[in-house]
Amino acid sequence: MISVNVLYRHTDATKFNMNYYLDTHIPLVRKLLGAALKGVVVHQGIAGGAPGSPPEFTVIAELRFDSMDSFQAAFAPHAPAVTGDIVNFTNVEPTIQFSDVRLG
Amino acid sequence: MISVNVLYRHTDATKFNMNYYLDTHIPLVRKLLGAALKGVVVHQGIAGGAPGSPPEFTVIAELRFDSMDSFQAAFAPHAPAVTGDIVNFTNVEPTIQFSDVRLG
Repeated sequence: MISVNVLYRHTDATKFNMNYYLDTHIPLVRKLLGAALKGVVVHQGIAGGAPGSPPEFTVIAELRFDSMDSFQAAFAPHAPAVTGDIVNFTNVEPTIQFSDVRLG
Repeated sequence: MISVNVLYRHTDATKFNMNYYLDTHIPLVRKLLGAALKGVVVHQGIAGGAPGSPPEFTVIAELRFDSMDSFQAAFAPHAPAVTGDIVNFTNVEPTIQFSDVRLG
């Protein structure tokens, strides 16, 4: 199982419409990627590790797929629609990485 | 449900003993935090979003708890043991944040 980690950094300039993200963007991603998408987790940052500090990321999301191949096959045809929707809810360019899910 | 997100940044200088982390550190955390710890997910970074780029994080972990209060009650007595074990598997000081689990 692999995950696509999508992290939206928090700064003073960060704008992020959580309602649009949860109610429109994630459903769009689910619809376009179909059965290849095995799960979605969304963490909304509330605080940093040090007392009184802000979180480093406004959102940390993970999308799970059976393999890199299954991700690429599902995502490639819809990449413009998925990435093009990002400006509709945030001014942050997300940090993206691919990971092996070692636990959980 | 809240999550504690623990992110170990990847650089050329990063050392990270994944076997120790999975086989010793995570079991230690589970043992010390007990039933308050509702779940652990470990993502091991394999690639960045741009073709040929490295992942920004060697590891992205999440630990779930019912609430901030239940985390703090479980963690506070064992904070020195948990954080003191980090030098046994990495030279990276993790980025930590607290999040609301909005989905998943």
